[in-house]
Amino acid sequence: MADEFDVIVIGAGPAGENVADRVVRGGLSAAVVEAELAGGECSYWACVPSKALLRPVELAAEARRAPGLTVGPVDTAAVLARRDEAVSRFDDGGQVRWIEGVPAEFVRGRGRLDGPGRVAVDLPGGGSRTLTARHAVVLATGSRAVVPPVPGLAEARPWGSREATAAKAVPARLAVLGGGVVACEMAQALHGLGARETTVLVRGDRLLGRMEPFASALVADSFAASGIGVRTGAEAVRVERPEPGGPVTVHLASGPPVEADELLVATGRRAATDGLGLETVGLPGDRPVEVDDSMRAVGADGGRLYAVGDVNGRALLTHMGKYQARVCGDVIAARAKGEPDDLPALRDAAGGYGAPQVVFTDPQVCSVGRTEARARAEGFPVRAVEYDLGAVTGAYLLGDGYRGRAKAVVDAERRVLLGVTFAGPGAAELLHAATIAVTAEVPLDRLWHAVPSFPTVSEVWLRLLEAYGL
Amino acid sequence: MADEFDVIVIGAGPAGENVADRVVRGGLSAAVVEAELAGGECSYWACVPSKALLRPVELAAEARRAPGLTVGPVDTAAVLARRDEAVSRFDDGGQVRWIEGVPAEFVRGRGRLDGPGRVAVDLPGGGSRTLTARHAVVLATGSRAVVPPVPGLAEARPWGSREATAAKAVPARLAVLGGGVVACEMAQALHGLGARETTVLVRGDRLLGRMEPFASALVADSFAASGIGVRTGAEAVRVERPEPGGPVTVHLASGPPVEADELLVATGRRAATDGLGLETVGLPGDRPVEVDDSMRAVGADGGRLYAVGDVNGRALLTHMGKYQARVCGDVIAARAKGEPDDLPALRDAAGGYGAPQVVFTDPQVCSVGRTEARARAEGFPVRAVEYDLGAVTGAYLLGDGYRGRAKAVVDAERRVLLGVTFAGPGAAELLHAATIAVTAEVPLDRLWHAVPSFPTVSEVWLRLLEAYGL
Repeated sequence: MADEFDVIVIGAGPAGENVADRVVRGGLSAAVVEAELAGGECSYWACVPSKALLRPVELAAEARRAPGLTVGPVDTAAVLARRDEAVSRFDDGGQVRWIEGVPAEFVRGRGRLDGPGRVAVDLPGGGSRTLTARHAVVLATGSRAVVPPVPGLAEARPWGSREATAAKAVPARLAVLGGGVVACEMAQALHGLGARETTVLVRGDRLLGRMEPFASALVADSFAASGIGVRTGAEAVRVERPEPGGPVTVHLASGPPVEADELLVATGRRAATDGLGLETVGLPGDRPVEVDDSMRAVGADGGRLYAVGDVNGRALLTHMGKYQARVCGDVIAARAKGEPDDLPALRDAAGGYGAPQVVFTDPQVCSVGRTEARARAEGFPVRAVEYDLGAVTGAYLLGDGYRGRAKAVVDAERRVLLGVTFAGPGAAELLHAATIAVTAEVPLDRLWHAVPSFPTVSEVWLRLLEAYGL
Repeated sequence: MADEFDVIVIGAGPAGENVADRVVRGGLSAAVVEAELAGGECSYWACVPSKALLRPVELAAEARRAPGLTVGPVDTAAVLARRDEAVSRFDDGGQVRWIEGVPAEFVRGRGRLDGPGRVAVDLPGGGSRTLTARHAVVLATGSRAVVPPVPGLAEARPWGSREATAAKAVPARLAVLGGGVVACEMAQALHGLGARETTVLVRGDRLLGRMEPFASALVADSFAASGIGVRTGAEAVRVERPEPGGPVTVHLASGPPVEADELLVATGRRAATDGLGLETVGLPGDRPVEVDDSMRAVGADGGRLYAVGDVNGRALLTHMGKYQARVCGDVIAARAKGEPDDLPALRDAAGGYGAPQVVFTDPQVCSVGRTEARARAEGFPVRAVEYDLGAVTGAYLLGDGYRGRAKAVVDAERRVLLGVTFAGPGAAELLHAATIAVTAEVPLDRLWHAVPSFPTVSEVWLRLLEAYGL
């Protein structure tokens, strides 16, 4: 087994896998090192299982809104079984075969930098192996959930996103610390699957604090209607769990404490740089790996270090990590071959516009680009328009009481979209049109000729443009 | 009541209503003449009721594919009741108020041209009224279903799209003549609502003959799986219905005859020009009203005649009629005020790319631009790529056995999309992204930076671009 490769990737999540794929397509050899499961956080403990849990809940709600349909209670065991299938029962054999079919060498073990161009791998059976890279080492180690330093919290052994998405049973009473995407999605999924008392404890004043405020309000309304409790301004000051696995109590800075059978902590993530040996290439080990738009680490000794996905801190989203991986893999191949390395495809152009993101709650919330507040803060000449999604015929035809809203944030001088947000049942698939319009900077006056089909929900595009004055 | 207006619109369907709205916004006065119901075919006998009937059927199928959900039989009475609500119980009061609120004058009666700039209206109570237009007369009379000259067919008093969408009960045995959009949608809706023996008689060799062949095949597979019979190459030669309202028999050129309790004829539509007085302005009365890209009738005496929507034969789709109406209303206002009338917004630019269209079957089929066959026939340097929608993670997460397919037709020289087709459950909302990309001619190399969110079905965009070699 040769220990020298053109490219060594540490981390076999979606980002790492895609780097390997692109460099091999570019004619280079690659090794991919993974300490856990090939496929990464997304495939086993994040996007995939969470959506597998959310889908039946969302669809049951849709069906209840549709006339003439009756839906029985959601069969939680069947949903958990499908979730198990979706995560391949934590068997990464298929992913390993995919990597080997690239072809790239899959190395199971914990990789860490050992100076420029060198990766030491602690093998699972003990011992280690040192790999050297002719052209590049790529960090793709992802991120880890953060447990905030609340007294008693760590000792209470709360769930993180991994335990929640991998749950084998649904707690009757669930408390959720956090109000972001993971908190909202898992509160809804587990509530829909049987957590009859679900309480979301949000430190700030609203759910989904980075989204447009109307989206937060729609999700909050939906939570209220389905019986999910939300407490805003909820600062946890102490957590008690006298018996391991027994009831847990969260004491708050104000108001009564919350008792639950399980506590999910979803208060954020940080780059997985622990023990990665960043100091051996002259980089600090306690923060995301700063990269330029070609994904090359800034300031690393030797200049052959790259970082893609969550570990570079740019956008903690699977699809953006994969996108960065395509850019990174292609630019490494170009540089290795002495080809031009500054073509548009070889730079992260998308990130700067504001990454697209979907929250799979009911209503779904999705956005791309800048919120109105952010665009204004950045000094753009902003004009924003909104439209009631429920007033679109295509939405009315989906069922009774469809509630949703859309917003477009426009650069009034250049007449291009700076950001778009949709909130509504099934809105996720509306997003890509906005992602194209925002990142390709399609002028409003050309969007005017892109006619949405009747009667789809997408007709909101026409309404937004009309609201703008077209 | 003044009988002179800046603009007179004949036909208060979506196209006519939008012309009135745009010219009044442009500072002109308008009258809208309608012989039937304000709101038009679409609102009462086409898109709206058909989707109201299809939605529960489609959603029940989706729910059956999702793990953990059980769906009872569709309650046909409840669905028909919601359909009745969706068509406002054939009361156009709300639409009339909308028109009056534009504000425009609503004139109920049958309008016909009476020379350039003059419209004679036969009033419902008898008598007539003549209106004169200072600037323009706009025809927006839509289209009518065609009953082909098969012996016995007219005498059998078959259903057309109007009777099918307005059905008060579902026949146990349904035969459908035709294989296009209306035929497929209504076969599926009525089958799902209780027509246990449904047979579609297609003259050609496939359903949806204008769509990409793979889409036809997917719909045919779905029909077969749900028990809808399809007979291709089925040429009806004689129809018998001995008792009015009794069983009807369709004899075919080959193969056994088909007996059913009701026969739906959905073999096409033609422009509604009968009795419209086109000859009084020097135009033929037996064909669509030919218009230029500003929607002005070609060759009409006086030059002040326009036609929008189905009656001009450009694209028999509600949304395209509305789009034409916006163009038309704006150009009339510009010309009336002596303003420039050749701005991009004042021309139908969308139609030339190939109108977007959605077929609300299960799977839904949607397309914009050109099919591969059409693009090749028109001499474009074509390269086409396809991808299995079911292989997209976002589709897998929607349920078991998701089947679908996507195709992109690319101008290989200019590297822009000439056409896109999606077929799959819930695919309708995927279309607008393609509509933007096709009509704004966004180059592939920019689409590459429009990152689809994971895990949505829209990720097929990435797969198509990868398949193309990006």
